[in-house]
Parts: sequence; structure tokens; C-alpha cells
Amino acid sequence: MQLTAEFETVHLDATSSYIITIDQTKLPNQLQMLKLKTPDDVWLAIRHLQVRGAPAIGVTAAFGLYLSAAASTAENFSDFYAEFQKIKAFLATARPTAVNLSWALDRMEAVLLQHKNESLDQIKRQLLLEAERIKQEDIQICRRIGENGLTCLQNGFGLLTHCNAGRLATMKYGTALSPIYLGLERGIHFRVFVDETRPLLQGARLTAFELQAAGIQPTLLCDNMVSSVMQKGWIQAVLVGADRIVANGDTANKIGTSGISILAKYYHIPFYVCAPLSTFDLAAVSGREIIIEERAAEEVTEMWYKKRMAPQGISVYNPAFDVTDQQNITAIITEQGIARPPFAQSIAALFQQKQAEETRC
Amino acid sequence: MQLTAEFETVHLDATSSYIITIDQTKLPNQLQMLKLKTPDDVWLAIRHLQVRGAPAIGVTAAFGLYLSAAASTAENFSDFYAEFQKIKAFLATARPTAVNLSWALDRMEAVLLQHKNESLDQIKRQLLLEAERIKQEDIQICRRIGENGLTCLQNGFGLLTHCNAGRLATMKYGTALSPIYLGLERGIHFRVFVDETRPLLQGARLTAFELQAAGIQPTLLCDNMVSSVMQKGWIQAVLVGADRIVANGDTANKIGTSGISILAKYYHIPFYVCAPLSTFDLAAVSGREIIIEERAAEEVTEMWYKKRMAPQGISVYNPAFDVTDQQNITAIITEQGIARPPFAQSIAALFQQKQAEETRC
Repeated sequence: MQLTAEFETVHLDATSSYIITIDQTKLPNQLQMLKLKTPDDVWLAIRHLQVRGAPAIGVTAAFGLYLSAAASTAENFSDFYAEFQKIKAFLATARPTAVNLSWALDRMEAVLLQHKNESLDQIKRQLLLEAERIKQEDIQICRRIGENGLTCLQNGFGLLTHCNAGRLATMKYGTALSPIYLGLERGIHFRVFVDETRPLLQGARLTAFELQAAGIQPTLLCDNMVSSVMQKGWIQAVLVGADRIVANGDTANKIGTSGISILAKYYHIPFYVCAPLSTFDLAAVSGREIIIEERAAEEVTEMWYKKRMAPQGISVYNPAFDVTDQQNITAIITEQGIARPPFAQSIAALFQQKQAEETRC
Repeated sequence: MQLTAEFETVHLDATSSYIITIDQTKLPNQLQMLKLKTPDDVWLAIRHLQVRGAPAIGVTAAFGLYLSAAASTAENFSDFYAEFQKIKAFLATARPTAVNLSWALDRMEAVLLQHKNESLDQIKRQLLLEAERIKQEDIQICRRIGENGLTCLQNGFGLLTHCNAGRLATMKYGTALSPIYLGLERGIHFRVFVDETRPLLQGARLTAFELQAAGIQPTLLCDNMVSSVMQKGWIQAVLVGADRIVANGDTANKIGTSGISILAKYYHIPFYVCAPLSTFDLAAVSGREIIIEERAAEEVTEMWYKKRMAPQGISVYNPAFDVTDQQNITAIITEQGIARPPFAQSIAALFQQKQAEETRC
């Protein structure tokens, strides 16, 4: 299966009446497209990980909120806004740890309020434009993350990545994989290692798939083989995405990330977090404030298996994320530039710089 | 399913006419006992991993060799010995790399030769006694590992283990799990965490099963969740087995062990290797000399799955073991005592002590 360079992960169909995206739970065996229309469709697709990856979730939720607003039969702003808020609150519960989800929904609400004195049709049009803007910005942001990431890497590097922070998680380039795709366009090649990422196997199913579909031949390994490939000297840098980065640089990402950061530090390998500024939650001071979602035991004991692979009734601990201590992060690569320790200052500086640019515009 | 404290992994039935053991390939879904009688039965059970774990393989092969000797219709020593040698050579091919297998078979032959001037009935009786002795020695060794291990642990500790170094791999107590079973007998309780141990899932299938069957409720986790449970403060000690320990203390064990040792060091958690002296290879000076077996890609991409979980044609790195650096090992717990750093000296001292005891006897 091939994904062309032009492929976009989430889009509205030509009549703007439903969302089209890949059903990521069917990969790598089937490339099956999903059509989402109602808030329930969108909520379920996000909850069941058919759409996943913070930016892809954000765009899908924004499109979903637009579609339900567009379908509203409310006749005055007050009813329209009440409906909108109800659906927004509902969509926000689909994946509580993903900060992008509420961020995208908040942007939609801000646009609605900004145009509250216009007609409902005009408001609906503005909501569509905003959702499309969130999407186009994601493409540009990911590309800039790739540009900045490439400055940290050299041709021929062995790179390790975890989970899927690729084009399937975003609109086009991915975050952690963006330097790899951008490198490919420019003749800079890497040897890419992919953790399978238990329990949901996003590395084996998604990252291995999308790299291979782009003509890059990665090497797949089990999560517990990371120390072994690092010990062999095969890895020159680790690139991971993020679900939430707080003010001091502590980073919530897919379960397993914090362990890799500790191994990278032990083997003196740079560990890079690649994420847009929208992933930052500066209201939280440290990772201790991040609440980690726990998921069903069956994801571990039987989800993918021919038969149950653990005894009936066994207790399972199945956190979806962990928190990587900022002390184990070499740099955080954003669209705005690269933050290096001390992160509290460098992250704040990126946001000030962004604000200054926006003020200038 | 329950395994009583008296349960022994491999034994002869009451009439000493066949071997009874669990079919480990059926776990954790079925507790199905195997009856082995002929050399072919024994060979196939070992080859197909229905019996696994170095000590369990050795005992099974020794009983198998006894059973075929007992069934011999030879009327003189020369015919009897020729038959014996043929079956011994055949059984040794079941898992040619398993050192314990040929070690146990050699012990049987040595006993036969030692009693060559006695009647065939007496030789058969000596072979039965030797096979039982190999088994009883394993039980005693594992029990002493448990005794020594308990001196490092406290009631209420959270313990993490990897792969299966339990009763299913040995006759009764296991190595890494021995302190847990012995603790249970004495009212010392632990909260036990078990890594699933990709790709073959020995943790999920075997360790979780045998602990649960003994009345201990372990918590299962994916290999990449180790950092998370350590970060939460749930683990006070790590207990693992070993496949090979060299003179400086470097330890080859199931893939994933070295990563856990690095995480344990980072979180200041003691990391204990539990193994009998027969696991040591003092001819090798450091872990660099250990050759690591790589196994089939399909173990990672499809072995247990309903459908293939990685794209067709993907490259896979699948080492069966890794080497834990002795610097990350707190202590090595043996039947002879506990070796602590510097290991080159403390390991040598255990062997000298053992030799001195044997000389005294």
C-alpha cells in the first residue's frame, strides 16, 4: 500500500457534509476510509482510536463541531450557542488527556463568540473556515517542526521512534516523523527503528505502515528491545511526539516514552520531543499535575490475540500515557524553534516570541 | 485453576511408568497434563516447548532416559548400554543448545557406568534414583535461592519480575519467584508485578498463571510500563532469573532485562538476579563474549495474533536475550549465598566456598 506525498489524514468531503479519514484500527491489513457525520460518530471514532494523534483528534473534533453546528435547526443565537456548548462538552470527553482536543474545540467557540452578532449562517461559515484553518495550520506547523528537527540530525543517523507521531497522527508530516519525511524530500536518509508500542501496537501497525508506505524501510522491534539496540550503538537520536507538555518541560506521551528517555540518557543518546505549541499546557507547572488515563485490561490480555493470553481474572495495570521528566529531554522541537534546558525559560521564550510575531502581524 | 504448594512441575506417576507434566503451550487457557512414556514422547514435548525452563528440561530428559532403560528387554550389559547410548543421543537433540539437557543425560550415563558390574535390575534402580536426585537437588537449590532472596526483601514490598523464572521452569519454587513462594509459606506477602515479556509472552502466559494458581494475585503490565510503575513508587525490588552469568557478573537473560536494570538504577530500586551456580559460565570474562540468539520475525509480527499486526515485508530485529551490565545489578542470589559488587571477587568466593564444602563432605 502506498500513501502519496499529497495524502491528508482528515478532510471534509467535497460537499462539506461529512468527515473522511482512515480507520486506523484496521491498519496495517486494510486501508479503509471512515465517514463521520454526527457528534456520536466523531466521539466514538476518537474514543475507539479510529482517529488518534493529538493534532488529528483536534482537527476531527473541530470538523465534527462544525458539522453539528451546520446541521443545527436553531433559529436564534441563544439556542444555537446552547446546542453548540452541549456538543462541545460532549466531544471534549472523548479523550481527556489530549490537550489538543479541548484546544481545538475552544478555538471553535472563540470564533463563534467573535461572530455572535452575525447571522447563524455566517457563524456556521466562520466555523467551517476556522476548522479548515486549524487543519492548514497543522500542515504548516508540522513542516516547520520537521525543518527545525533536521538541524539536530545528520544524514545516516539511526533514529528510534515510539508509538505514532507521524502523518497518521496529524494532517500530513507528523511531528516526530516530520524530520524523516522532510529529509526524504531532500535526500537526507536515516535508519529508522520503530517500537511496536504495546498494548495497542501503534508502532507496529501505524508507524511501520506509514513509513513503509512512504518508501522508507524501518526496522520494527518490541518495546523491551530498546536497551539492546541502544547498547549496539545503532541509535543516534530518539524522536517522540507529545500529548501534553507542561511549563517546566515535563511531557506526557504514549506509555513507554519515559522509560525510553531514561535509557537514552543512560546510553548518552539525545532524546527529542517534537510537538506544536498547541500541545503545551502552561497552566500546569510540573508533570505531577497531569492525570493519566487508564484503559481496559482487555487491551493487554486479549485485544489482538487469537485466544486470551493471560489468565482469566488477572489484575492489569494499563496506563495510556506516562510522564517523561524534563531532566531526560535533550530538546523540545516546535514550529516556533527549539527549546533546550532550562525549559521553564526556553519554553516561555518561544511563547513570547510567538506573541511578538502575532502582535507585529 | 489452582496449583497446590505440593505441586511439582515434573514427576513420575505412582507406578513409575510414565512422566506427568503440564503442557505449557496450553497455558493459561487450559491446565492440561501430559503423560510421557517413550523417548519420542519426551523428545517431542521438549522440542515443542510443552516442557521448558532449563531445570525442567533436564529432569524430564533424565526421567525419559530412565523409563526407556527400565523398559529395555536387553539381557546383557553390552546390549543394554548400546540401547541406552542410542536413546541418550536422540534425547540430546531435542533442544541442542540447552546445556541442562546434556548435563542431566551425562549424569545418568555416569551412574550407569559407575554401576556397570551390577545386575541390570540394579542399574535400572540406580538410574531411577539418579533422576530423582537431579529433581530433588533442583528443589533444594531453588528453595535455598528463596531463603537467601528473602533476606533482601521485606513484608509488603512491591516486586517486579520479567519472563518466567518460576515453578514452571523448575521443579517447585523457581528461581526469581522462589522468595515469593517461600514468603507465602511464612506469611510474608508481596505485591507482585509481572511484565508480559514480548514477544513470547512468558510473563503473561506463565508467570501470571502460576502466581495466580498459587493464590497470589499479581498485576500484569506491558514491558513498556515498567518506568511508570517504578515512578509511582510501587516497586521496592526487581527479581529476575538468568540464562548465563559470566565471571564479572554480566548476565544474559530474556530480552528486556537490561532495560529494566537501567530503569531500576535510575529509580534507586534494588535489582536482583536469582540463579543457581550451574548458570554461571566462569570461562567467559565479560558479557561481550556472550553471543545473542536472534529469532524469527514472525514471533513479533504475527505469532499470537488474529491477524498480522505489522505490514508485510517489514524488517524486524528480534533478539531472544540481552546482556545486563553487572554495574546495574545490586546482587546475584544463588543457593550458595549472595554475591554483591565487586562481582568478580564475590562470585569466585561462592565457588570456592562450594568446593570447600564438597571437599569436606
